[in-house]
Amino acid sequence: MLPRGRPRALGAATLLLLLLLVVGFFLFGRDPEYGLRAAATFDGDPYGSRNRSASGLHPLLPPKCELLHVAIVCAGYNSSREVITLVKSVLFYRKNPLHLHLVTDAVARNILETLFRTWMVPAVVIRFYDAEELKPLISWIPNTHYSGLYGLMKLVLPSILPLSLARVIVLDTDVTFSSDIAELWALFAHFSDKQVVGLVENQSDWYLGNLWKNHRPWPALGRGFNTGVILLWLDRLRQTGWEQMWTLTAKRELLTLMATSLADQDVFNAVIKEHPELVHPLPCVWNVQLSDHTLAERCYLEAADLKVIHWNSPKKLRVKNKHAEFFRNLHLTFLGYDGKLLRRELFGCPNQLPPGAEQLQQALAQLDEEEPCFEFRQQQLTVHRVHITFLPHQPPPPRPHDVTLVAQLSMDRLQMLEALCRHWSGPMSLALYLTDAEAQQFLHFVETSPVLSARKDVAYHIVYRDGPLYPVNQLRNVALAQALTPYVFLSDIDFLPAYSLYDYLRASIEQLELGSRRKAALVVPAFETLHYRFSFPNSKAELLTLLDAGSLHIFRYHEWPQGHAPTDYAHWREAQAPYHVQWAADYEPYVVVPRDCPRYDPRFVGFGWNKVAHIIELDAQEYELLVLPEAFSIHLPHAPSLDISRFRSSPTYRDCLQALKEEFHQDLSRHYGAAALKYLTALQQSQSRA
Amino acid sequence: MLPRGRPRALGAATLLLLLLLVVGFFLFGRDPEYGLRAAATFDGDPYGSRNRSASGLHPLLPPKCELLHVAIVCAGYNSSREVITLVKSVLFYRKNPLHLHLVTDAVARNILETLFRTWMVPAVVIRFYDAEELKPLISWIPNTHYSGLYGLMKLVLPSILPLSLARVIVLDTDVTFSSDIAELWALFAHFSDKQVVGLVENQSDWYLGNLWKNHRPWPALGRGFNTGVILLWLDRLRQTGWEQMWTLTAKRELLTLMATSLADQDVFNAVIKEHPELVHPLPCVWNVQLSDHTLAERCYLEAADLKVIHWNSPKKLRVKNKHAEFFRNLHLTFLGYDGKLLRRELFGCPNQLPPGAEQLQQALAQLDEEEPCFEFRQQQLTVHRVHITFLPHQPPPPRPHDVTLVAQLSMDRLQMLEALCRHWSGPMSLALYLTDAEAQQFLHFVETSPVLSARKDVAYHIVYRDGPLYPVNQLRNVALAQALTPYVFLSDIDFLPAYSLYDYLRASIEQLELGSRRKAALVVPAFETLHYRFSFPNSKAELLTLLDAGSLHIFRYHEWPQGHAPTDYAHWREAQAPYHVQWAADYEPYVVVPRDCPRYDPRFVGFGWNKVAHIIELDAQEYELLVLPEAFSIHLPHAPSLDISRFRSSPTYRDCLQALKEEFHQDLSRHYGAAALKYLTALQQSQSRA
Repeated sequence: MLPRGRPRALGAATLLLLLLLVVGFFLFGRDPEYGLRAAATFDGDPYGSRNRSASGLHPLLPPKCELLHVAIVCAGYNSSREVITLVKSVLFYRKNPLHLHLVTDAVARNILETLFRTWMVPAVVIRFYDAEELKPLISWIPNTHYSGLYGLMKLVLPSILPLSLARVIVLDTDVTFSSDIAELWALFAHFSDKQVVGLVENQSDWYLGNLWKNHRPWPALGRGFNTGVILLWLDRLRQTGWEQMWTLTAKRELLTLMATSLADQDVFNAVIKEHPELVHPLPCVWNVQLSDHTLAERCYLEAADLKVIHWNSPKKLRVKNKHAEFFRNLHLTFLGYDGKLLRRELFGCPNQLPPGAEQLQQALAQLDEEEPCFEFRQQQLTVHRVHITFLPHQPPPPRPHDVTLVAQLSMDRLQMLEALCRHWSGPMSLALYLTDAEAQQFLHFVETSPVLSARKDVAYHIVYRDGPLYPVNQLRNVALAQALTPYVFLSDIDFLPAYSLYDYLRASIEQLELGSRRKAALVVPAFETLHYRFSFPNSKAELLTLLDAGSLHIFRYHEWPQGHAPTDYAHWREAQAPYHVQWAADYEPYVVVPRDCPRYDPRFVGFGWNKVAHIIELDAQEYELLVLPEAFSIHLPHAPSLDISRFRSSPTYRDCLQALKEEFHQDLSRHYGAAALKYLTALQQSQSRA
Repeated sequence: MLPRGRPRALGAATLLLLLLLVVGFFLFGRDPEYGLRAAATFDGDPYGSRNRSASGLHPLLPPKCELLHVAIVCAGYNSSREVITLVKSVLFYRKNPLHLHLVTDAVARNILETLFRTWMVPAVVIRFYDAEELKPLISWIPNTHYSGLYGLMKLVLPSILPLSLARVIVLDTDVTFSSDIAELWALFAHFSDKQVVGLVENQSDWYLGNLWKNHRPWPALGRGFNTGVILLWLDRLRQTGWEQMWTLTAKRELLTLMATSLADQDVFNAVIKEHPELVHPLPCVWNVQLSDHTLAERCYLEAADLKVIHWNSPKKLRVKNKHAEFFRNLHLTFLGYDGKLLRRELFGCPNQLPPGAEQLQQALAQLDEEEPCFEFRQQQLTVHRVHITFLPHQPPPPRPHDVTLVAQLSMDRLQMLEALCRHWSGPMSLALYLTDAEAQQFLHFVETSPVLSARKDVAYHIVYRDGPLYPVNQLRNVALAQALTPYVFLSDIDFLPAYSLYDYLRASIEQLELGSRRKAALVVPAFETLHYRFSFPNSKAELLTLLDAGSLHIFRYHEWPQGHAPTDYAHWREAQAPYHVQWAADYEPYVVVPRDCPRYDPRFVGFGWNKVAHIIELDAQEYELLVLPEAFSIHLPHAPSLDISRFRSSPTYRDCLQALKEEFHQDLSRHYGAAALKYLTALQQSQSRA
């Protein structure tokens, strides 16, 4: 019971004091930086959040299954590569479902649609917006920044994102996360009623306007703000009349300034200079800017924890600064990170499996791990992430008889690429089976090769490694699907075509009136050399001389004669015109066919029978087989692949291949009926011979 | 001003109420789970911390640069691999300096000392404790758990860790972190005065004692606690008389129970059953246990955030449970993570660079990126992480004339290993240049190969990839340093030795009385075949027949005759006894030498001159060169390596190699004076010829 009267009031006052102390302790004692941080955010101290305090925001994290929205503008081949590393870093730390709003040009959309479809990350929704349609909205602004028009598109996001969307995080493609994006989302809760845009202060002196004589940047508050990471409160922006506000400001500034130097960032800063109440300053750790003359050190030396790194120099990872190595390591973590490991569900959230994922999970779950061919079954079902046109690519102009060389390879055949480029001057579509880390090595390899970097007509498609068996036919199908000419030369990476082959094939296609009149497969006879160093024949005559001298052989003449015997090399020696040959068991010539030819059967993984099955399919669909008299290509020596070694040493491997063959024939019979009987008979004959 | 009298009291009471509301809001509203979690910790609800609340502990994180202590018991080859993945996961998320206290057997110490020395992670201190010395303290406890005696060693940590150490986190090698270990350390602050050990409840029904008829586990509180993750308050344990307490309990229980089934865990639980006041229950997310019949789902389906995963089934990653794939992906993240990316400094903490790191940084900083041979210089300076004896290994018994085959390889030569094992029945020491991810593929490759998994006398040493050039001589030196026999056969991975070579070499060494009397290098003549499939000669006579038939050649006879010409193959054909040969320019035979021979010159990276320099060194040190008349080995065909392709295509590459040669000769002159003149003369002659 409380004492009465004055003593009672005194008691109450004492209690009050005590309570105040308790409140003070909990508010400031438990998290001594809370007040300090709040100050840092509002008084404009851009290097606030001096220590662990930034993590003190956790209690305000969005609920476990809340959907977070992220918008990114992405155009072209290089930005498409960049954005994937960004997305990997976000996915690695995220614990919430995500909705990505991607504003893309046609190139990026093509790449990213394929990538996300094959990536199959649970609890990620992707929506694309056509950058082309936005161009008229911003193309009136002259801009000298390297991001071109695309940088400016961030300004119009409030107009183009769905009206139902109240808030969004906007990211440049050149940022890397090292924290959970929900912590960034949580900062929306710190906005005052008036604030509509959250930004980190610039960590450079650009907007101070004293970098050189007559340096006249756009107007900004102090150092201004960087727009690599933006919190946009969309519905408030729409209410404020954002569109009119920024266009008026931009038009006015453009009366005296020639163009924006830093794209959208100049406009954002000019608007903020006029309306400082609109901006909510974010702690510097959410956009650590690594330009050449960065002042970021003032931020990260004090912080316990970096949240987002921004490679905002045109030099990107090659930027020079004292701690560049540290930041590169963070970034390389995600460059080389195996993206398939991000196919992680969010426990306890409503299931958001991407299309096809559920059936796939069920099919995989039904496999019997103890079954001897389990590895084959699993590999066949594997959906590999696919990054088409990994490097900048110039599609070939439409030409009615043009041919694309189609092949696939892994890291151990990179050294073939330069030679291949010297031998084949036409377009190529190559599928590369690589890990994420190897894809980066491959990039470096191409960039440092004058031969390869000069060729823009070679399209490289990365199929990411997953599983122990080489998915040869899945790779071929990826490369085939991306060929853009009416005809394709289905080759293998260890073969060098005759120097004249590209021209000769186009002439032959025209002459033979393929496509229009005939369904035909043109056979390119295959040879091999066993010598490391080898003087490549310049003509059929030279080739025949080498053949007679024993320095060249018919391909696999001793090991696997039936593979190419039907080509009839004796006939070929003398032939002056294309001649017909008939299909026979195990025939697997290299052929030129229309692009719409049957796909390869993806059940054949690892070594063996992958091309044989394709030729059967062509024959079953009544493709003529025509051998070209002047065409040839030559196989160079290499060590046996791991798959061929396993085939040779493992009876199980051979049994599994046999099982695949039989299933293939069953499907063939189902599809072609009696017409497929000859293939089965041939198979049985060859088995009884074996 | 406050109203007086009753109204004043009333006003005070209102204010009080308001304040209580405010306090309540801040205490429970901001972090609504705080109370709940506290309850979860104390009322024994093991699946507490139902959502984000666990992160609410951040405000109590230790200060930025506070040193955190971790103790791990680790013995043998497999645990040494495991612990590295654990350490990688800890380092990835950590932001504090760490002190690792490693209790190891001789094998693990040898492996981990090399690894941490070459890893050079800043702000990590390692101290080793000899497990051998602890055995007497616990060997009296009969134990049937797969961890053997080593599991029990966690019990004696309070006695053996330094007295100055007040608190320590103890981890099993089979846990993986997915959070900052400082958050775990912060939980010490929640201990009451009496509590000395922090543990997560068991996520299985083992200790309930109803798993099968007559199942009699050790006593425990309810489900008991799991000891994969322990917070040990060491000084309190020492004060409580921990040693006496646990030994008394264990002795008493062992009167009725035969042995511990779960090692230290049984003893910990028996002590806690008697003294429940000693334990501080930790939130379940700090030890998500993935045994076969785990109940962990109850924990992780509700949690927003898993902190530590524990693979506490003997099946480890192959454990079956509904979400195994999810957890495997988390674990595979660190299995395949490039450990060099963890060489990250902690900004703002006093510099704690490991030995040598500072000089290395300075040397690297002095390199000129624009210099044409920059890549070579950088590669030479690179300190690669080295994991010696990556797989279980049985060192050869000491035999005075025994020979170890020494070679190096990368992923693209794995398929050579089985053939090599068939040709060489003696010990081997092989250095493998791999990425962390490739090392796991390699492990799988060996485990699934009956030939390789049967061989325990082959030691595999992983040198982790870093940089664009193959560090061939650094690899050779690693393999050479780990050879345990008195002699070594310095070979290359593409060579298969004669079947008889191992026996023949040992006999020759004995006969020639090497080592004791003579400093000699025994030359093994080298041949090559160009055929993929090749019937290996069983004798010198058969080899000569193949040579005469043209199916075999002297190694590189056409491309680089000077490399082996001094071996004098004409003499060898007829030779019945070992014969002397003289050094000549560019000579690079494969030789057998005493293990203490000169090391390879690590400046030669990439292709070219790496063996030539070593033979010069042998000659300069006056090793006799003796060709063995019955010895031979044969090189199998393979595609040219990326390095040799670059050598052939890049003039800069050749110029850099030339520069290396010249520097090598300068060093040679400095070292051997006039005696080295002949090498320089030879070099100049060969250059003037070229």
